[in-house]
Amino acid sequence: MPSGPTHLFIPGPTNVPEVVRRAVNVPMQDHRAPDFPELTGSIFEDLKTVFANSTGRVFVFAASGTGAWEAAITNTLRRGDRVLMARYGQFSHLWVEMATRLGLDVVCLDVPWGEGVPVDQYAEHLAADPGIRAVFVTHNETSTGVTSDVAAVRRAMDAAGSEALLFVDGVSSIASIDFEQDAWGVDLAVSGSQKGFMLPPGLAFLSVSLKALEANAAVDGTVDGTDRAMSPSYFSFASMATANDTGYFPQTPPTQLLHGLRASLDLLLDEGLPQVYARHYRLAEGVRRGVAALGLDLCATDPAQYSDTVSAIRVPHDVDSGDVVRIAYHRYRTSFGAGLSKLAGQVFRIGHLGDCNEVMCLAALAAAEISLNDAGAKIELGAGVAAAQAHYSQHYLEETR
Amino acid sequence: MPSGPTHLFIPGPTNVPEVVRRAVNVPMQDHRAPDFPELTGSIFEDLKTVFANSTGRVFVFAASGTGAWEAAITNTLRRGDRVLMARYGQFSHLWVEMATRLGLDVVCLDVPWGEGVPVDQYAEHLAADPGIRAVFVTHNETSTGVTSDVAAVRRAMDAAGSEALLFVDGVSSIASIDFEQDAWGVDLAVSGSQKGFMLPPGLAFLSVSLKALEANAAVDGTVDGTDRAMSPSYFSFASMATANDTGYFPQTPPTQLLHGLRASLDLLLDEGLPQVYARHYRLAEGVRRGVAALGLDLCATDPAQYSDTVSAIRVPHDVDSGDVVRIAYHRYRTSFGAGLSKLAGQVFRIGHLGDCNEVMCLAALAAAEISLNDAGAKIELGAGVAAAQAHYSQHYLEETR
Amino acid sequence: MPSGPTHLFIPGPTNVPEVVRRAVNVPMQDHRAPDFPELTGSIFEDLKTVFANSTGRVFVFAASGTGAWEAAITNTLRRGDRVLMARYGQFSHLWVEMATRLGLDVVCLDVPWGEGVPVDQYAEHLAADPGIRAVFVTHNETSTGVTSDVAAVRRAMDAAGSEALLFVDGVSSIASIDFEQDAWGVDLAVSGSQKGFMLPPGLAFLSVSLKALEANAAVDGTVDGTDRAMSPSYFSFASMATANDTGYFPQTPPTQLLHGLRASLDLLLDEGLPQVYARHYRLAEGVRRGVAALGLDLCATDPAQYSDTVSAIRVPHDVDSGDVVRIAYHRYRTSFGAGLSKLAGQVFRIGHLGDCNEVMCLAALAAAEISLNDAGAKIELGAGVAAAQAHYSQHYLEETR
Amino acid sequence: MPSGPTHLFIPGPTNVPEVVRRAVNVPMQDHRAPDFPELTGSIFEDLKTVFANSTGRVFVFAASGTGAWEAAITNTLRRGDRVLMARYGQFSHLWVEMATRLGLDVVCLDVPWGEGVPVDQYAEHLAADPGIRAVFVTHNETSTGVTSDVAAVRRAMDAAGSEALLFVDGVSSIASIDFEQDAWGVDLAVSGSQKGFMLPPGLAFLSVSLKALEANAAVDGTVDGTDRAMSPSYFSFASMATANDTGYFPQTPPTQLLHGLRASLDLLLDEGLPQVYARHYRLAEGVRRGVAALGLDLCATDPAQYSDTVSAIRVPHDVDSGDVVRIAYHRYRTSFGAGLSKLAGQVFRIGHLGDCNEVMCLAALAAAEISLNDAGAKIELGAGVAAAQAHYSQHYLEETR
Repeated sequence: MPSGPTHLFIPGPTNVPEVVRRAVNVPMQDHRAPDFPELTGSIFEDLKTVFANSTGRVFVFAASGTGAWEAAITNTLRRGDRVLMARYGQFSHLWVEMATRLGLDVVCLDVPWGEGVPVDQYAEHLAADPGIRAVFVTHNETSTGVTSDVAAVRRAMDAAGSEALLFVDGVSSIASIDFEQDAWGVDLAVSGSQKGFMLPPGLAFLSVSLKALEANAAVDGTVDGTDRAMSPSYFSFASMATANDTGYFPQTPPTQLLHGLRASLDLLLDEGLPQVYARHYRLAEGVRRGVAALGLDLCATDPAQYSDTVSAIRVPHDVDSGDVVRIAYHRYRTSFGAGLSKLAGQVFRIGHLGDCNEVMCLAALAAAEISLNDAGAKIELGAGVAAAQAHYSQHYLEETR
Repeated sequence: MPSGPTHLFIPGPTNVPEVVRRAVNVPMQDHRAPDFPELTGSIFEDLKTVFANSTGRVFVFAASGTGAWEAAITNTLRRGDRVLMARYGQFSHLWVEMATRLGLDVVCLDVPWGEGVPVDQYAEHLAADPGIRAVFVTHNETSTGVTSDVAAVRRAMDAAGSEALLFVDGVSSIASIDFEQDAWGVDLAVSGSQKGFMLPPGLAFLSVSLKALEANAAVDGTVDGTDRAMSPSYFSFASMATANDTGYFPQTPPTQLLHGLRASLDLLLDEGLPQVYARHYRLAEGVRRGVAALGLDLCATDPAQYSDTVSAIRVPHDVDSGDVVRIAYHRYRTSFGAGLSKLAGQVFRIGHLGDCNEVMCLAALAAAEISLNDAGAKIELGAGVAAAQAHYSQHYLEETR
Repeated sequence: MPSGPTHLFIPGPTNVPEVVRRAVNVPMQDHRAPDFPELTGSIFEDLKTVFANSTGRVFVFAASGTGAWEAAITNTLRRGDRVLMARYGQFSHLWVEMATRLGLDVVCLDVPWGEGVPVDQYAEHLAADPGIRAVFVTHNETSTGVTSDVAAVRRAMDAAGSEALLFVDGVSSIASIDFEQDAWGVDLAVSGSQKGFMLPPGLAFLSVSLKALEANAAVDGTVDGTDRAMSPSYFSFASMATANDTGYFPQTPPTQLLHGLRASLDLLLDEGLPQVYARHYRLAEGVRRGVAALGLDLCATDPAQYSDTVSAIRVPHDVDSGDVVRIAYHRYRTSFGAGLSKLAGQVFRIGHLGDCNEVMCLAALAAAEISLNDAGAKIELGAGVAAAQAHYSQHYLEETR
Repeated sequence: MPSGPTHLFIPGPTNVPEVVRRAVNVPMQDHRAPDFPELTGSIFEDLKTVFANSTGRVFVFAASGTGAWEAAITNTLRRGDRVLMARYGQFSHLWVEMATRLGLDVVCLDVPWGEGVPVDQYAEHLAADPGIRAVFVTHNETSTGVTSDVAAVRRAMDAAGSEALLFVDGVSSIASIDFEQDAWGVDLAVSGSQKGFMLPPGLAFLSVSLKALEANAAVDGTVDGTDRAMSPSYFSFASMATANDTGYFPQTPPTQLLHGLRASLDLLLDEGLPQVYARHYRLAEGVRRGVAALGLDLCATDPAQYSDTVSAIRVPHDVDSGDVVRIAYHRYRTSFGAGLSKLAGQVFRIGHLGDCNEVMCLAALAAAEISLNDAGAKIELGAGVAAAQAHYSQHYLEETR
């Protein structure tokens, strides 16, 4: 039986920094206390900074990212509304499923897994169909390691004169990869606590534009049996906003996680968002060079869309990626992400986001190499580590020049 | 500025036991790991024991208790369904509001705050209207300190031959006050992590009867624009059950809280549920004797309905209960519950549930006395403490006889 | 079996504030890292502030307070040196024992337990015997709750023209009760982490005057078999000072506790030492009024010497104080200090120091009352609490006037 | 500025396992409580198991390992006693210094750093000088990564008919490398909490044979000015034994660390001591193969004496090992041990003991490689990792065959 610490290299939930762990580990307090708004006010402000949302507002729900997806839809759309979506991985697939289940009229474009959002096809549909009420983009598809170009979707929408709302799933991108809500005209950006925010799971974040708030006002309200309104109650923007405006929550919030979020925001803003993004790029690029040196391919097909938070790595054809993941877990106390759905057996995934640095990525590659080797892959041990080392070393060489 | 530890005597969130705090404070792990079901399986089993639900199943969502309310409704009812509710405090009021917003046809009986569920009126309505699809009871109304007789409602339903589902809000009762889902024929019992379960907020529990599961199967499914189905997605029983059956969750669950729940269930079952309930009665009775010795009244009017988890205490007419709460907080680092809504200014509330014992209740009474005194109430300092001491002392005298 | 949190009212180790607990709970680090001195430098500075030692230096050893006693003696005295000590409680007694064991020629004055240092007798001895090399004072005798007048001893020494070193045991006073090393001419002040410093046990503190450092230089060095030098090695001032001057320690220090100490010093200095002392007086005075209202006597005989950190309370003659302590522990999860040595059975002790406030003292009195009652004492339940409440309430009345 | 977690690969203090961290993080308790002996009794028993000491007893002091050295000497020897020691690294050197300072008549054999205890020379001295009262062995010299043969020293003593006590410094070996107190006839074995016991620093352990206890009884007692007895007080075996026999300590012990020790002993005994030793060998051998693959030499000269807890690695002649350590720390958040004293600049050290496993060792090698590279060493990146991977992979291949 293996001993020693576990090693977590999944694309979320991510490792919680010590300072955040300590911030979370506080005694229970009264969430209706007079000084509670001192905590919440600064959190709302700084969350807006992370989302680069200067005019709208943010919401924090006790939920997973999936809850945030639902909140985004149910607060701004009506049953039967036609929306434009694309499916290029497991998480974009699940979002399509939810939208369908919630009664939206989903126009779904299927794209090979490994590619990103089909901007050109979106442009065509938007031009052809002015009735599209909302356009959905999964910014970072966690199952394939593909980062899509949200700004391009916005440009396509503008070019088509679309009045649709732009929904973005940023669960595995925001706070790790550059995200610009204002500049990209994103109306509803969704994230969660357990990825780039480096917190335990349990909080869902929404960052909402003024336009989305207006859409909410238009559809909100009590329904009767035939109404197309979705009438969210737990996830209601309106009741949340009313309470938040006084510094409180309409229900009991997870106060411990809010303290953790305060610490996490401090970490992000102290390092600086550009520096955070640059670090994620540097670490990811090292991993990618390591993968290439091992003679393996990424699931992502376009280098311009390689994700800086997760690399989905194709194993050789005669190897089962499930074996790699199992060996890593049972022999080496290391967690990698498995291949999901149609990628099962074909890829395993290394998360390199959040509280991460060079030595962690080298350890991830070393663990991947030995697990691949033990699973029967013919790879050169150490080669991936060496390539990543060279990249990281070069960075410091340049920096100190 | 006051120093030293804070003292939390609100009716939830409650103080987290040290062993639970430690259980929660674990590093992040992969919720899709091969051995994760070892954790979840035992949790589901033991939760059923706490709810006394031997045949149905339990659900655990990342949400507040309000989320569990919504899950209960949206998974088993349709828009336009007629339901019977009563409003006798702030939380039963909020449940009525949610039901209305979600599109139910609510028959709401208003009862003076301080009384419990109007069993006789329920009986009349049920007899008169066989179209009632669901009956709602707030088992323990946290705002007034009133515990209602759920078993009596079940008897009334049976007497009327009602086929309705019985919904019970047990957020501030379950795991503290006797609750018998099987015996009382409760179909959907709702609770949360932050009261009797002694955990941080963030988990919502539902315990569901077989009949409720059948109702779910009947209403579940994708909606079109005119369907009366509510189509919960985040809170979907079906997708949760499918994943739970394999030991996993459909989304990322708050793994840290699950470890805490494991520890909390161990605490409850090691002490023994009858012993837990007896302790809550003993502690509450001491507080009530203290209140009486101070010459103050409870908000609850019927001694048979006094709550063993929270006492809502009426302050003298010339005193503002808000002052009592503020003085306690700012001078004495002590949190009491304020009077909510129509009880604002008139009552303050002492929570005596969860990780609680005699000395804590004595401290709560001592803090209440000095805060009342400082707020201008003419009470005899120490009198409440003395009455509670006598009660607690008597208990041990009898026990050791 | 009782449930709920434990209640700790012993005169040390004291309750650790949450912020200190979190500060202690850090991962292991390298105590030889380049930036380690950033931590230690500020600690040494602020410790000097707490001891009011502006010219000498402080030492931090991994040890209990007893270790600090030994360090004080072995670094500055030689075997056979004549020293003046007094025995007025268990801890002054143990210090006499140690001094004797270490080979000092101890002149020991026995004083009834409950009185303080016999200043007049000290004056006589000092006048009569210029060969006294050191004078010892237990500032706060934890076993009897007596605080002695150190400044008066210094005046007596000066009046006698004594060149002796003045040793003070401040384990249960420093950081809680006014202590003025410079002003009182204290040469070696000894304390520990687990009382007023509100840390777990494990650190011993010495604050040393320039004169004591010179004494150390005079006696330090390797011994041969007949030398009278004591040759401390682990507790050597010289090797510690050499390492500390670079920001490091000669051995592996308890780094976690050093982080806790940093947090504890922040707490003390943020509140302000005069405010800390005033709070201890206020809390202690409330407890004393409560004790008087119960008709009980303190062990301390002179009100001018009542300790603000611990009250040793005499039980009625027909009651065994051991029963009080046992009942408190087993029935009410409450820890009081027992009567030590010749006070066994006669007194129990309430610690009211460190991370302490009004509601804690009221809880302590309430627990003491019920435990006394259950042990057979005829006391009026609630009377002690009431007297303390009146005192605490009065304080705020005056403050807000 | 680097981000992410720190990586600690020093030869102590070692990484604290999560379960131990949680065990340490408990509220303060009364160390004189009636049930405190339940904790201490099991600790003493299990410590004896770890030391393989079936007949003598163990002592636990609040101190560093250096304190334990002093306790061993001062409790069993007198000033002027002649003792046989050897100096083959920084820690054996410091022990010689302490023995000299404490007044022992030290016969010190100097051995090139990188070699172990000179058994043959010991044999000669013991044969020639029957007046040797004690023989000292540093089992694992942490500064050079050399493990000496304690059993051989015992055989040499027996062959010479020596009546001397056998002292062993096992600070960086015990609980990681095979240690057999009974079988090897060790009289005083010394260790500390912060290495193989995986605890924070703060506890010193001594495991003492019956013969050493008899020696203690013979020298113990109050001294006068000319006595050769060392009269330890804080470190007195006698007073510690008396208190321990009742389950208590003579002073306030670090209760939190005792809880941690309980958890640590559980970890060790659950894994099994032979399995713990085998794991340390396997991990160390992987590191050594990695070092060899990089073309670097160990400081240890005899493969039979390679340490399984720490590898001291010689850097190329044109590289400063201090640069390697600094680059690792500042660029890569990684702590290695520096070269101490005469090895400064020439070696850096990797600790591979305690809560350690394969991926940690691979990470350590990867961090060492990149740091060496950045410091100007001509090494092949990845080569060390590859060699270690091959070794670890081979282990599982054989195990599962």
